[in-house]
Amino acid sequence: MTGYHQPLQLVDRPAPEPARPTDVMVRIGGAGVCATDLHAIDALMEQAGVAPPRILGHENAGWVEAVGGAVTTVRPGDAVILYPPQTCGLCLACRRGLEMQCERHEFTGLSVDGGFAELLRVPERSLLRLPDGVEPAAVAPHADAGLTAYHAVRRVAHLAHPGTTSVILGVGGVGHVAVQLMRILGAGRVIASETDERRRKLALELGADAAVDGREAVAGVRDLTGGIGADIVLDFVGTDRSHGDGLAMLGRSGTYSIVGYGGTVTSGSVALVVNEQTITGNLVGSWVDLWELIQLHATGRLALRTERHPLESVNEVIDRLRAGDIVGRAVLVP
Amino acid sequence: MTGYHQPLQLVDRPAPEPARPTDVMVRIGGAGVCATDLHAIDALMEQAGVAPPRILGHENAGWVEAVGGAVTTVRPGDAVILYPPQTCGLCLACRRGLEMQCERHEFTGLSVDGGFAELLRVPERSLLRLPDGVEPAAVAPHADAGLTAYHAVRRVAHLAHPGTTSVILGVGGVGHVAVQLMRILGAGRVIASETDERRRKLALELGADAAVDGREAVAGVRDLTGGIGADIVLDFVGTDRSHGDGLAMLGRSGTYSIVGYGGTVTSGSVALVVNEQTITGNLVGSWVDLWELIQLHATGRLALRTERHPLESVNEVIDRLRAGDIVGRAVLVP
Amino acid sequence: MTGYHQPLQLVDRPAPEPARPTDVMVRIGGAGVCATDLHAIDALMEQAGVAPPRILGHENAGWVEAVGGAVTTVRPGDAVILYPPQTCGLCLACRRGLEMQCERHEFTGLSVDGGFAELLRVPERSLLRLPDGVEPAAVAPHADAGLTAYHAVRRVAHLAHPGTTSVILGVGGVGHVAVQLMRILGAGRVIASETDERRRKLALELGADAAVDGREAVAGVRDLTGGIGADIVLDFVGTDRSHGDGLAMLGRSGTYSIVGYGGTVTSGSVALVVNEQTITGNLVGSWVDLWELIQLHATGRLALRTERHPLESVNEVIDRLRAGDIVGRAVLVP
Amino acid sequence: MTGYHQPLQLVDRPAPEPARPTDVMVRIGGAGVCATDLHAIDALMEQAGVAPPRILGHENAGWVEAVGGAVTTVRPGDAVILYPPQTCGLCLACRRGLEMQCERHEFTGLSVDGGFAELLRVPERSLLRLPDGVEPAAVAPHADAGLTAYHAVRRVAHLAHPGTTSVILGVGGVGHVAVQLMRILGAGRVIASETDERRRKLALELGADAAVDGREAVAGVRDLTGGIGADIVLDFVGTDRSHGDGLAMLGRSGTYSIVGYGGTVTSGSVALVVNEQTITGNLVGSWVDLWELIQLHATGRLALRTERHPLESVNEVIDRLRAGDIVGRAVLVP
Repeated sequence: MTGYHQPLQLVDRPAPEPARPTDVMVRIGGAGVCATDLHAIDALMEQAGVAPPRILGHENAGWVEAVGGAVTTVRPGDAVILYPPQTCGLCLACRRGLEMQCERHEFTGLSVDGGFAELLRVPERSLLRLPDGVEPAAVAPHADAGLTAYHAVRRVAHLAHPGTTSVILGVGGVGHVAVQLMRILGAGRVIASETDERRRKLALELGADAAVDGREAVAGVRDLTGGIGADIVLDFVGTDRSHGDGLAMLGRSGTYSIVGYGGTVTSGSVALVVNEQTITGNLVGSWVDLWELIQLHATGRLALRTERHPLESVNEVIDRLRAGDIVGRAVLVP
Repeated sequence: MTGYHQPLQLVDRPAPEPARPTDVMVRIGGAGVCATDLHAIDALMEQAGVAPPRILGHENAGWVEAVGGAVTTVRPGDAVILYPPQTCGLCLACRRGLEMQCERHEFTGLSVDGGFAELLRVPERSLLRLPDGVEPAAVAPHADAGLTAYHAVRRVAHLAHPGTTSVILGVGGVGHVAVQLMRILGAGRVIASETDERRRKLALELGADAAVDGREAVAGVRDLTGGIGADIVLDFVGTDRSHGDGLAMLGRSGTYSIVGYGGTVTSGSVALVVNEQTITGNLVGSWVDLWELIQLHATGRLALRTERHPLESVNEVIDRLRAGDIVGRAVLVP
Repeated sequence: MTGYHQPLQLVDRPAPEPARPTDVMVRIGGAGVCATDLHAIDALMEQAGVAPPRILGHENAGWVEAVGGAVTTVRPGDAVILYPPQTCGLCLACRRGLEMQCERHEFTGLSVDGGFAELLRVPERSLLRLPDGVEPAAVAPHADAGLTAYHAVRRVAHLAHPGTTSVILGVGGVGHVAVQLMRILGAGRVIASETDERRRKLALELGADAAVDGREAVAGVRDLTGGIGADIVLDFVGTDRSHGDGLAMLGRSGTYSIVGYGGTVTSGSVALVVNEQTITGNLVGSWVDLWELIQLHATGRLALRTERHPLESVNEVIDRLRAGDIVGRAVLVP
Repeated sequence: MTGYHQPLQLVDRPAPEPARPTDVMVRIGGAGVCATDLHAIDALMEQAGVAPPRILGHENAGWVEAVGGAVTTVRPGDAVILYPPQTCGLCLACRRGLEMQCERHEFTGLSVDGGFAELLRVPERSLLRLPDGVEPAAVAPHADAGLTAYHAVRRVAHLAHPGTTSVILGVGGVGHVAVQLMRILGAGRVIASETDERRRKLALELGADAAVDGREAVAGVRDLTGGIGADIVLDFVGTDRSHGDGLAMLGRSGTYSIVGYGGTVTSGSVALVVNEQTITGNLVGSWVDLWELIQLHATGRLALRTERHPLESVNEVIDRLRAGDIVGRAVLVP
């Protein structure tokens, strides 16, 4: 990214070297393309320290190329996926395992250079070794899309006991993983809500018990639950509309959990009190979340819907993503 | 209550008899007066089935006077406090111990006759035997004010570990119990926020670590936490202002828990997501909550600030409550 | 059961009538036969109040035949399953939803007459309405075998995240349900341990990731976990041998959860401390557990392996159960 | 420690230097003396890598003297307490915040040199900055004794709601902190059990509701609970006798939590099952546990009973500890 509102440019640069003894050089095997990349290009993330020139790409996996002198947990050749936050490991948030709230945190591919490249330098703390037989390009989108879905589902899964109904609002790159995770980590019914028919079909293939049209989501969910409403709503859309729908379809003791953001959440407090409802927001997930997600992926129970493109096609991929034409996730392979 | 917007009237009625074999007659020892009684008189609770003629009074304690033929757990003479919801015990909510969400529930003193009287008929399920040495009039307000505080505090107490800050918004009949419970059930710092100086003083006497002026609550809390904000905010006020303040003073991973209602909660979803914050509403509490509260009261660790008045003074007490002149809780003694 | 150590006898008796207004008469559709019935016949449960003459049968489902005057939640013709404990609904344990610890509890088919009969009288509190399309005889064993499995699995399922290993010791009537529940409620790997080859095969069909020979269970599990040991062990056997094995195959922070009993659990405390391990015992489960289990069954995700026999064959079924010849569960149909 | 079964020797050594860029030199302000030091001298910990020559002392606090080049979170002069495990921060256990289970862990003062010295070299990860106004020597025993108590109490505190009874077996260096923590983190009744009368008195001063003679602990607890037994038992003794007592005094749904070890835990599985009881072991605690404990100490709600001695008196202190003559904890000040 050499400027805002412009196509990305492929630039030849000298290969980076480990700067600190705890640095690791990673040869990129695949890098997922995310809606956040669009926000970065559109100059919406300047406050978060995302400004040109910057190499984007925060969903990265590959192989260790070289290690600094103090690195002890990986060797060259190891297949790895990269946890995007670069964290200190020493602050209270890191010690609690909430690294995404690290006091000193950077974010690979946003606040520092990322994986739309051949080689990437990251601290050892960012690495997570892949289990045998798991190929980097096949799991790269788990680094952010999958991780975000996992973190959000993990936080509500204990509520999704048999007899409950969960709704997934939006079956895109993150939501299509969430549909599956809700089935695997939860034990209740899962309803997907989507405006795009192809994605409703995808949701059903991935295990959703029902799929409703996102334009009539509230009526659809009320109908499928006999008027009772949903016990859990996970919102991957994040507009005024989805926030209103999420609360309107929520039943007693229900939890409305927000991942996609942008809109405004508004509710009379009487409704929250009388129904003992909960609203909660979710960040990206912890390193342990990513570890668990990758173990789950390795068992074959989880399908990540990806399409691969050469790194050179990055701008076409970005245009298709902007047009809503990617079902699942696009991965760039250098 | 013989009509809306009128003083209550003392009416002589024949003593009620047990109607069903599971009914119990209770001689009232004390009945707390609550802001909800004002709402009932002001015709604000018609939707909830509260209409004249109705004997108000939902914070009741006394002694068993007579029991129906199928009653097995109490005898005449037993000191009891009355759990206000009258519940079925058979629906899923009751079986889960969430009786306040009972499918068939009535509410003593609101949807059916209550305890501003000498005798009251309730089902056996409403009774809770008082431990030896606990006097009914001394604990009557626990039936609703204390119970509501306990339920709300109990739900967040596990978050209030050492190093955290909790804020209580509003130190009235419910809030002054919550200040103490937050100290006893939690282990972090407790800040009370109140506009009334007498109540700020009361909060400090009851164990609050600090008390801030409710008109400058956000600045006060930000200041006392070094800008970090609160981990838990319990709102017993429930206005647009308190809802805005509650969210504005909330720190990362914070929980904003609402008891008082009336206003509108509004937040950009980005703030909830970036800070992983939670908003949750609270109903009155379960029978088990009341049982635990009463056991705690019996240990002497909890002070219920009450003033006693004869039942005949009900209208003066209501006027003083309306004027904000009651510190703690007023109890009517027949 | 007319005497200990004797075959059961079929006796003609007048049809029982509702005795209390909350009683319900149920026409039995199916009654599961359980190892506990063997214990009763063998005079091992006299302390628990199980003595002849007694109609056994605690895994009952059927249809409501008649209701007492105070019954409000079912009507004649409703298909129901019977929660075996007969509970008061008023004590602290019942209020907490831990009805199996009710202070005044009876147990259908053990301490009072049960379902090896055409008609059975139970209190309304014991009933659970079956969802549409669920046939009583098909789910009768859930009343105890399934419920016990569900309760035990539910208590540890939150520990069974991706990357963990759970072991089921014993794939009999209860264990074969537990294998499936561990897959559905948990998200880790499930290993079944069984001495009987047919049941190892059954476990694999029902979703176990691996099955090891119960005679070499410790070595098998250590081997499959690279020496680390299991995170969760659920013991449905309950002998000195299984207790020793369960602890010997347990990894760090592991939980050894006991359902089958009879043997003695012995461990040096140093091992529990250094490895932060937990040992816990499980009773039959709550009414809510049974409700959740039945909702899950109704979704078709759970297979209950049953074989049906006429009520007249009860003694042959008991002999085959004693000989270890029943795979899954036998159900008597009157 | 220059040899087993011998007095410790004071040896002059050159001041150590930071070896790695993440090392920190700490000037010792105080070092607690623990029963584990006796075990080390008695050659009981050779398996854990504790062998002469070794500088003992694992309960250390002091001031930062010098820092390696990569250290970012402390500066010379900062008052600190030292978390005893030296951990990698990169393994799964560390990432989960369970650093005491770190795959690569050393233990200051046992497997590597400790704080019975003027200066000590530790990695930055071991440090925890003390809040303003907290003096190192006053909190040194929290590094292990307090931390162990905190970790164990924290794991069961959510069970200690009003109406429950907790028992602390053994009111020594660890137990006397646990009595207070059980009062602060829990909300039920606390009973201390001790054979030594001075310590029973101490327990009552520190907030225990009752103290029973450890020689008649089971009868004492059964008596105080009306025969019901304890909901929680925390065992800081760890002998066959205490393990037997702990289980014998446990009520239904009770948790027996073990900190002191050495004996054998034995129970018929039927008792665990019928009563749904739990047995669990506890290690030393996490860095976050220590952080929370120190925040709590800083509020003044927690009293650490210490006596200070010059470092030269180490052998006398060890003799007195061996004789059971220390009430609370002895701290060596260089």
